[in-house]
Amino acid sequence: MDIKPYKKDCDYSYTLGAFPTFELLNTRPETVSGVLVHSSFTDSEKVREICKNNNIPVEVNDKLINKLSDKENVFCIGILNKFQDTLRKNAPHVVLVNPGNMGNMGTIMRTAVGFGIKNMAVITPGADSFNPKTLRASMGARFRMNVEEFNDFKDYMNKYPEQDIYCFMLNSKRQLTLNECNHKSNYTLVFGNEATGLSDDFMEYGQSILIPQTPEVDSLNITIAAGIGMFVFSR
Amino acid sequence: MDIKPYKKDCDYSYTLGAFPTFELLNTRPETVSGVLVHSSFTDSEKVREICKNNNIPVEVNDKLINKLSDKENVFCIGILNKFQDTLRKNAPHVVLVNPGNMGNMGTIMRTAVGFGIKNMAVITPGADSFNPKTLRASMGARFRMNVEEFNDFKDYMNKYPEQDIYCFMLNSKRQLTLNECNHKSNYTLVFGNEATGLSDDFMEYGQSILIPQTPEVDSLNITIAAGIGMFVFSR
Repeated sequence: MDIKPYKKDCDYSYTLGAFPTFELLNTRPETVSGVLVHSSFTDSEKVREICKNNNIPVEVNDKLINKLSDKENVFCIGILNKFQDTLRKNAPHVVLVNPGNMGNMGTIMRTAVGFGIKNMAVITPGADSFNPKTLRASMGARFRMNVEEFNDFKDYMNKYPEQDIYCFMLNSKRQLTLNECNHKSNYTLVFGNEATGLSDDFMEYGQSILIPQTPEVDSLNITIAAGIGMFVFSR
Repeated sequence: MDIKPYKKDCDYSYTLGAFPTFELLNTRPETVSGVLVHSSFTDSEKVREICKNNNIPVEVNDKLINKLSDKENVFCIGILNKFQDTLRKNAPHVVLVNPGNMGNMGTIMRTAVGFGIKNMAVITPGADSFNPKTLRASMGARFRMNVEEFNDFKDYMNKYPEQDIYCFMLNSKRQLTLNECNHKSNYTLVFGNEATGLSDDFMEYGQSILIPQTPEVDSLNITIAAGIGMFVFSR
């Protein structure tokens, strides 16, 4: 397999490590063009079996694994063709507006799937949902989600007009309470960039909502805020 | 100032960056032995004023800042003498059992202070609450907390016998609900190591509790689980 280190304009990406690779193989086998295993990988028989059932080539290639894995201890890599999804209508959505960090994006995906939220819109510019770092931080949850990109939040709202929008903002007057679960399942939770949050424009979209916190900290980390919001809404 | 890069057995530590340094100066000025500022630091007048009021020496030393800051962009460093706290009785506590990661520990501190939880016990061995990486991840919230170390969880319980213990465990049968706020303020939320969680022994201490999640993910990230637990209990 002739795979080069990932760049954003590649039409492929790859999973670093056994856990996300098994997630990939189990959820999106049709996208997998091949799997690389290290000669010292202990679970290679299980990989070979899944790959055989799906006609996916497996190659032992320590050198290529080392080249792609960026110094981390990786024994298994799945190569996938990028795919495009659209979101499910009238289902819970999470929207990340200009997310800045691939690790945070992946962590939010992992939490979302943990709470049964499987549709994510990303307003660009923002972190790349296919970057191997995102895939790894998501522990493969990326493959269980529909992810759709939009240039503008308004484009998202136009395409999914029946969603109830909740924008998480520090300057909102309405506090998130533990009774927020009284709602239909078509809610959309919107979170801003790590450094800048959501701009004031978002006060006009749906309802804005604040996670109450003491003035003694700057703000909650975005992955924590998203985790709390998703937990409460998914109850 | 003759400061060497941090090691665990140092009797000093330091804050990397303006935000945690201001937090240090505003909350624990008596522990600060000096502040380093970079020649291009823009907020140095504010630092000098606080330091003058507290008789803390300020030194412009670009070379030492570069040496301590490990390639990151840092313009201000506060040097502090380590201190020891005991926890406040009959107040909310969080306990981290053998935490493995300094970034996670700092993030949990930041979230805890955001929800008014200012007492943390750390069961050793575990991440160093004074490591500059912990201080930085906490955004200085470390200085607003009492942190106390114990070799064994039983020592913690013996010292604080009036706390109501809640152990967050994946194999608990009791689910965290949104009504968990019906409690006194002397609750203790216990979280395990990132990789191994809490051992089965902890089923015997207080109540065990589970954050309900789909089987489609391995588990929630520890910082997210702690954030959700602290949010719900602090309501």
